[in-house]
Amino acid sequence: MLIHVPETPCGRLGDAWRTCVGTGRFELALRRDYQDSLALLQRDIGFRHIRGHGLLSDGVGIYRPYEYQGVRQVRYAFTYLDQVVDAYLELGIKPFVELGFMPSELASGDQTVFWWHGNVTPPRSWTEWAALVRATVTHLIDRYGLDEVRGWPIEVWNEPNLKQFWQDADAGAYHRLYEITANTIKDIDGSLQVGGPAISPGEDDWLLRFASFVTDREVPIDFVSRHAYTSGPAQQVPFGVHQTLEPASRLLEQFALPRQQLRGTPLAGLPVHITEFNSSYRPDNPIHDTAFNAAYLAPVIAAGGEVADSFAYWTFSDMFEEEGVPTALFHGGFGLLTHRQIKKPTYHLYAFMARMGDQILTRGTDHLVTVDDTGRVTILAWSPVDHTGTASPGHHPLQLSVPVSAPGASSAFVLRSTVDEERGNAWTAWCEMGRPRSPRPRELEVLREAAEPARSHRSLPLVDGRVTLDVTLSRHEVTLLEITPVVDETPPWYDERRLLGADPTAEPFS
Amino acid sequence: MLIHVPETPCGRLGDAWRTCVGTGRFELALRRDYQDSLALLQRDIGFRHIRGHGLLSDGVGIYRPYEYQGVRQVRYAFTYLDQVVDAYLELGIKPFVELGFMPSELASGDQTVFWWHGNVTPPRSWTEWAALVRATVTHLIDRYGLDEVRGWPIEVWNEPNLKQFWQDADAGAYHRLYEITANTIKDIDGSLQVGGPAISPGEDDWLLRFASFVTDREVPIDFVSRHAYTSGPAQQVPFGVHQTLEPASRLLEQFALPRQQLRGTPLAGLPVHITEFNSSYRPDNPIHDTAFNAAYLAPVIAAGGEVADSFAYWTFSDMFEEEGVPTALFHGGFGLLTHRQIKKPTYHLYAFMARMGDQILTRGTDHLVTVDDTGRVTILAWSPVDHTGTASPGHHPLQLSVPVSAPGASSAFVLRSTVDEERGNAWTAWCEMGRPRSPRPRELEVLREAAEPARSHRSLPLVDGRVTLDVTLSRHEVTLLEITPVVDETPPWYDERRLLGADPTAEPFS
Amino acid sequence: MLIHVPETPCGRLGDAWRTCVGTGRFELALRRDYQDSLALLQRDIGFRHIRGHGLLSDGVGIYRPYEYQGVRQVRYAFTYLDQVVDAYLELGIKPFVELGFMPSELASGDQTVFWWHGNVTPPRSWTEWAALVRATVTHLIDRYGLDEVRGWPIEVWNEPNLKQFWQDADAGAYHRLYEITANTIKDIDGSLQVGGPAISPGEDDWLLRFASFVTDREVPIDFVSRHAYTSGPAQQVPFGVHQTLEPASRLLEQFALPRQQLRGTPLAGLPVHITEFNSSYRPDNPIHDTAFNAAYLAPVIAAGGEVADSFAYWTFSDMFEEEGVPTALFHGGFGLLTHRQIKKPTYHLYAFMARMGDQILTRGTDHLVTVDDTGRVTILAWSPVDHTGTASPGHHPLQLSVPVSAPGASSAFVLRSTVDEERGNAWTAWCEMGRPRSPRPRELEVLREAAEPARSHRSLPLVDGRVTLDVTLSRHEVTLLEITPVVDETPPWYDERRLLGADPTAEPFS
Amino acid sequence: MLIHVPETPCGRLGDAWRTCVGTGRFELALRRDYQDSLALLQRDIGFRHIRGHGLLSDGVGIYRPYEYQGVRQVRYAFTYLDQVVDAYLELGIKPFVELGFMPSELASGDQTVFWWHGNVTPPRSWTEWAALVRATVTHLIDRYGLDEVRGWPIEVWNEPNLKQFWQDADAGAYHRLYEITANTIKDIDGSLQVGGPAISPGEDDWLLRFASFVTDREVPIDFVSRHAYTSGPAQQVPFGVHQTLEPASRLLEQFALPRQQLRGTPLAGLPVHITEFNSSYRPDNPIHDTAFNAAYLAPVIAAGGEVADSFAYWTFSDMFEEEGVPTALFHGGFGLLTHRQIKKPTYHLYAFMARMGDQILTRGTDHLVTVDDTGRVTILAWSPVDHTGTASPGHHPLQLSVPVSAPGASSAFVLRSTVDEERGNAWTAWCEMGRPRSPRPRELEVLREAAEPARSHRSLPLVDGRVTLDVTLSRHEVTLLEITPVVDETPPWYDERRLLGADPTAEPFS
Repeated sequence: MLIHVPETPCGRLGDAWRTCVGTGRFELALRRDYQDSLALLQRDIGFRHIRGHGLLSDGVGIYRPYEYQGVRQVRYAFTYLDQVVDAYLELGIKPFVELGFMPSELASGDQTVFWWHGNVTPPRSWTEWAALVRATVTHLIDRYGLDEVRGWPIEVWNEPNLKQFWQDADAGAYHRLYEITANTIKDIDGSLQVGGPAISPGEDDWLLRFASFVTDREVPIDFVSRHAYTSGPAQQVPFGVHQTLEPASRLLEQFALPRQQLRGTPLAGLPVHITEFNSSYRPDNPIHDTAFNAAYLAPVIAAGGEVADSFAYWTFSDMFEEEGVPTALFHGGFGLLTHRQIKKPTYHLYAFMARMGDQILTRGTDHLVTVDDTGRVTILAWSPVDHTGTASPGHHPLQLSVPVSAPGASSAFVLRSTVDEERGNAWTAWCEMGRPRSPRPRELEVLREAAEPARSHRSLPLVDGRVTLDVTLSRHEVTLLEITPVVDETPPWYDERRLLGADPTAEPFS
Repeated sequence: MLIHVPETPCGRLGDAWRTCVGTGRFELALRRDYQDSLALLQRDIGFRHIRGHGLLSDGVGIYRPYEYQGVRQVRYAFTYLDQVVDAYLELGIKPFVELGFMPSELASGDQTVFWWHGNVTPPRSWTEWAALVRATVTHLIDRYGLDEVRGWPIEVWNEPNLKQFWQDADAGAYHRLYEITANTIKDIDGSLQVGGPAISPGEDDWLLRFASFVTDREVPIDFVSRHAYTSGPAQQVPFGVHQTLEPASRLLEQFALPRQQLRGTPLAGLPVHITEFNSSYRPDNPIHDTAFNAAYLAPVIAAGGEVADSFAYWTFSDMFEEEGVPTALFHGGFGLLTHRQIKKPTYHLYAFMARMGDQILTRGTDHLVTVDDTGRVTILAWSPVDHTGTASPGHHPLQLSVPVSAPGASSAFVLRSTVDEERGNAWTAWCEMGRPRSPRPRELEVLREAAEPARSHRSLPLVDGRVTLDVTLSRHEVTLLEITPVVDETPPWYDERRLLGADPTAEPFS
Repeated sequence: MLIHVPETPCGRLGDAWRTCVGTGRFELALRRDYQDSLALLQRDIGFRHIRGHGLLSDGVGIYRPYEYQGVRQVRYAFTYLDQVVDAYLELGIKPFVELGFMPSELASGDQTVFWWHGNVTPPRSWTEWAALVRATVTHLIDRYGLDEVRGWPIEVWNEPNLKQFWQDADAGAYHRLYEITANTIKDIDGSLQVGGPAISPGEDDWLLRFASFVTDREVPIDFVSRHAYTSGPAQQVPFGVHQTLEPASRLLEQFALPRQQLRGTPLAGLPVHITEFNSSYRPDNPIHDTAFNAAYLAPVIAAGGEVADSFAYWTFSDMFEEEGVPTALFHGGFGLLTHRQIKKPTYHLYAFMARMGDQILTRGTDHLVTVDDTGRVTILAWSPVDHTGTASPGHHPLQLSVPVSAPGASSAFVLRSTVDEERGNAWTAWCEMGRPRSPRPRELEVLREAAEPARSHRSLPLVDGRVTLDVTLSRHEVTLLEITPVVDETPPWYDERRLLGADPTAEPFS
Repeated sequence: MLIHVPETPCGRLGDAWRTCVGTGRFELALRRDYQDSLALLQRDIGFRHIRGHGLLSDGVGIYRPYEYQGVRQVRYAFTYLDQVVDAYLELGIKPFVELGFMPSELASGDQTVFWWHGNVTPPRSWTEWAALVRATVTHLIDRYGLDEVRGWPIEVWNEPNLKQFWQDADAGAYHRLYEITANTIKDIDGSLQVGGPAISPGEDDWLLRFASFVTDREVPIDFVSRHAYTSGPAQQVPFGVHQTLEPASRLLEQFALPRQQLRGTPLAGLPVHITEFNSSYRPDNPIHDTAFNAAYLAPVIAAGGEVADSFAYWTFSDMFEEEGVPTALFHGGFGLLTHRQIKKPTYHLYAFMARMGDQILTRGTDHLVTVDDTGRVTILAWSPVDHTGTASPGHHPLQLSVPVSAPGASSAFVLRSTVDEERGNAWTAWCEMGRPRSPRPRELEVLREAAEPARSHRSLPLVDGRVTLDVTLSRHEVTLLEITPVVDETPPWYDERRLLGADPTAEPFS
């Protein structure tokens, strides 16, 4: 079936897809590989905000009680906070602030989460909690300016609906935490943005109860947030898990849910941020390393902006450590990049999105077509995936008639960039190399080469201001087609047949 | 026909192919794009020496006569000489010193060569010429040390057998120039290396006359040098030429000629440096930009070390200017790289050579097979070309049985890197883009992407310590196959069939 | 005398002083040392525009006539233009376009200027000149966008009132050149800025005649430009000159002259750009290398913005070549930086200016005091110089009472940065080192160290919201004092007397 | 008293002073600021080896037990080990391997040390410990080659004589640990270097008992190691301590002790490595930030190589974390550099040492004089310090007659680089700035400027091949004097009196 791409845009693509990205715990941002990875990401993709856990945990060292002349006092230490935020801003990305977890010396209990022991209990002093929030936000404003900081959403805690992340998943305690925190922030400056409840999928009524609470108590709220994942229970193997998946459309349904739930409430119309999403919620599921993951998520990235204000891929890098230090280069981490910056297929899905134009011409179940103001038409296309455990299709055809117009254009240049099971796929190369847990320098170079998308290009004739593309997608392929009108500068004396070795019976090249 | 690659090396590959590379005139080395290009070259290829014209010409400004208190004196100014040589050494490459052309204030006439007006007449004072040589070489020794400078060959003049490069192509005057220069250099230090006569092809008796001269007069000589090209007369078009070519084997014959000519003479056994070679001797022949050029030269690069001590590709970059400022990005320049560092196919031929092992296992008309001390077997293969003006073959098969051995290896990983008419070929992309003379930044990025070799990879089973490769080369393809033994680290619990979307009936991956 | 600095600003400092800087000929910008120098300059100073000669000269290679099928045509080649302007914009600086000199193939005569042979004759075809201007400006707009290019002033030719720069200093021919050029530019887009006549000092009536011409003929003009120098005739020595100087106030008078001259004319109110200025107009006068030059120019830089819209130091780097390749590192070049980026005293004068606040508190014959919006008060002070050939004063006292206010401030931190005959003065070090013409790497490092300003600092008490500064300036000193209010974070337990080796009888530090 | 420096060297300076430097725990090396700091250090100083704790602790994640099919097994994960060692080698520094502390899953108890919880109990399985050592060392050899790894000393544990670092300071258990470890290493390859016992000062008999043990049991040993500090007990204040100090000569005595103790034993003649030393052993004593520390340690650094084979400053950076995240930029950390790379005075002491020549001409209680093969004479001089709590001298005179010889030299160029209480002293500037705990970017710039040594220079006449230096050192000053013979290139026409503003009655400059 030939898809006839219209000439007139039907909407804007927007930036919801790159408004935010996830990261491992806060102080990992001090690492060189982290910062180099982020620099690469920003060059190729350009996320706006970054969000991760642990800002207030012991590893960042902000909350520092001491005794002097018999009196207990608190010093707030911003040594690492400043180093990280300085680095973020220098790299062109802003914090999406998550307030949590609890400093152990302020905690009311000793329950922790993760290998790195984030304390998930309420504060033993709400006054000191409020003072900590006030000191931290005030310091950020002092250092970076109110104009800057009011652009950083501030989210209260992470997934309080789960017992692992908030003691007893106590909604009442969370509401109290939210209220005290939001009021403290608004007391600093009313233009600061605060929100929650940052819930995980599966407890959808939490949002409604939270909405009622803030409405009833007139607690400030500037945005609502939740997470989205489609994986089933973990099936353990050593150093990893496998999981079943729901269809990718379930992610879009989760993205859309807050707006649906809040329709008709006083919170209707607030920005909705999906502050985490991915296929699997596990940092050790090999699915994240595969072309399957890219093809599975492509329709989600391409359409998520229709139903939410942002949706943050969890996470940009395998530097993460929730389950400890990885034992192999590829270990099923969340990252778009491995340690040492090997690009995974889903990295390229995002990099392809970053090359799309800002006007949408058309979209379908396997494609999205845009145009930019230079007349470059860009097509993101993907193969359908089978998430049920049987094989995804090995071939998938796509035919489009694409309008190309520019003054003086006589042909079109098409550049195709592809990732699939074989191409732009360092995971496959790594498997073929025998899955070396700690690759040697030469192996890392080969993986970097194998991770680059395959590029092909050709010249196509313009017929009535259109080119016809006949594309076959392979299994789990995600492809980007960039179609540029060509104004030919070939001089009249040029005759390609005079090039040695060329086919002398061929027509001139262009 | 299956080529059975032996397990035992039959020789060493050596470094003759990268002992030297050519460059545009001396002061172009002050440019940023030049130095960035050279840095790229050194990272990917690693040449040992670099040779170009114009060291003593006015643009470098060494020879500076002045009058003081009524007496004419000469100041030698090394401002640019030092900047260039400092940069070379920092980039890991050493000069191959060419002494020429004549400073205009020392020249006996006003004949010049090139757009940049290199004076090609003898000195009007042989004493001042000797003083200039002495001052320059002495300065280099003062700055860089004798241990360093004695490793830099010093060649006297360039192509004195051509009237364009040496007034009247006067052999007697050249012999005098050589004698005075060589004696001056040896008088500074006997361990410095001096040579000549740097002749162009076509006047092969010049070398014999030169040999007789230095022998008869007992003039010092440490190496002999000549050039090699295979192109016919220029057929002009605006801003360019076309030319016929002889077969590439003629280059190897030219490389071999000095050793043949000097056999039995006192100069037999001296190092032979081919200080320039290429297909076409013109800096505006589009042949240099093509995959044809790479496939045409592949057998020359692969075998030249058998017959000469070095052979220097003329030149590493299109920054050149003998015919003026180029009017288009691709303009048939000599360069392995264009301005702004777009890699041409011949660049990759050299980069592939740099990945070869140092032990030769076998060679043939379309391949060279090496192994390194890690057991990695490397195959450089190329398609045959037709230089007569009819089309080169569109397909060329190659089958090899390759020995792969390493303790514990159970399979082999094969990485293939390819350039041909479509792949790793920025020239083709540029033609398809309408030959934009001054590409925009986005077009330069696309050209850089198009210039990267296509990479593919797979796992092959080891059968009796061997893998069988069945390769088809396309028109003008040059390909590198790197075969690495795999020690499998896959854990016993790994079952690739549990990956979603994979074919569940397939055998496990490895 | 104690200068009582008021608390209320009396004006804004503005950016006239860094609106433009001069450069050697256009294609020198391709060099690495040039670009590295410019990057340093932009980091420390941040000029807005850069202006130099030779855009249309043969070395840039834009104008390229050829014959095809018997017809003469012109190709415009932007290979180097694009490389240079791309680099400028990447370094955060914009062109101040100077249209000149004449391509030799378009010239009506063969008179040239400089070692690099800029042709200074009128075009032999005004039509082709207009076509060249149109092609060049149109190309810039195509590549960089009209919004960008309309911010670049376009100046017609350079110093047409001098016979060296314009054949016969023919005013009529210049007027014609200006008219055709300005009309061509405005025909491309009316918002482009065009101006002239770029005259040298000494022919002040030229401007009035030019003003009459453009007024009478209604020729477009967006700004007027002239140059300013204070040096007398060259007294030659080999490779250099000495010159007398007028007082520095003469520069300010020259800056002010166009506004005075044009008062009451239709051109009154146009921006006035001093597109070149310096003490000496010679690129080989050692004055440029000295602290004298910095102290001499300090009052000019500090006050020039009161009388002109910009004044461009001629030039930022010794990479220049009007008199050929320099024969020594320090050779009296115009540059703020030598080759290889040794900072001269005048460089620091500009770098000090870049640290000034944007509100002026007061100014005097030996100082300028500003404040910025953080409350930091900044004082630029300089010693008086003697330009008559007798010694400048060896000591010069300066006392100021400076208001310092910030919430919670209890003291002030004063940082002093100094250059004079000994400090921040690589020239003096170079003289002491024996004036090595081509310094070795270790010597270059020492020169870089010697070139850094001396820094000293102290804590001063606040008395009634003020600090008192008692400063003595040495011969030819230029100094920057930065006074920052201190909010003390010293903890109550801190006792400096417990530091070992300190004087135990001293008062605590702060 | 005039010190007459002889012309003939009396010994070699050697590299003992920079053979090794200390670092915070292993995985801190993953940080960007750490690697940037190390790059700076290596450029200015050039240490050979780096040693820190925690290689085997949980944060590096090497030891990873798991269960599969009911059997407990161990996977060794080198993810971080490789990243760190790759970075070290890239930065030109090699590991000085310290094997410790205990992985918590291999530990026999739960006693830990430091904020980061290094487990200090013996292994619960000696077999598994040996397997861990074998796996780790074998992996290093596989990755980096035996030639490389045999150059890395391997030290068993850290300060086992202290209860904090080794449960019960159990000598018998340590001997067993050493024996098993050393035998395991030598079983891998006999050329690997293993040693101990890495004891802290204060238990000097430990070394003798250890020596007896290895001798009696014929346990392999290639070097002995101990630590040296001169501080007394900690006097606590919040976030810091003060301590008394012994005289610096006590450090040299501690360095010398192992050779004395082992004289006459079978271990006599083994290399002695002081694998940690500093004034205070506390990471929160402000002494480390001061000029006092540099002047106190100067005689130790200058002479330590006479009595030990290496002595490693503990540590190169304030990135350390034994007491948690620092609460202020200057916090008394061990570092030569603070976080964000502010240089402390002791940094410059090392940087000055790196500029010394390799031949010693003379030495004294306040100076060390060397010469290099270019004839450059270098003097490191320091003020005496008072470590008893009374003030160090405010002035200290030093007079030397220094031989300077080079062909053609007519004068000497003297460059002086100084740090003291005011100059090259960011700590003082930071105090004056009010001790900002988390300095703003502009404050960090000022601190970097304040941290640079003061430079001064002059030309001195040669009298009978000597220059006389009359130097006054200020309180806690460390100064470097570099004296270079000058071969004058001043041209005969040069007359400095023609420079404007100079004193016309003065003698010509040189």
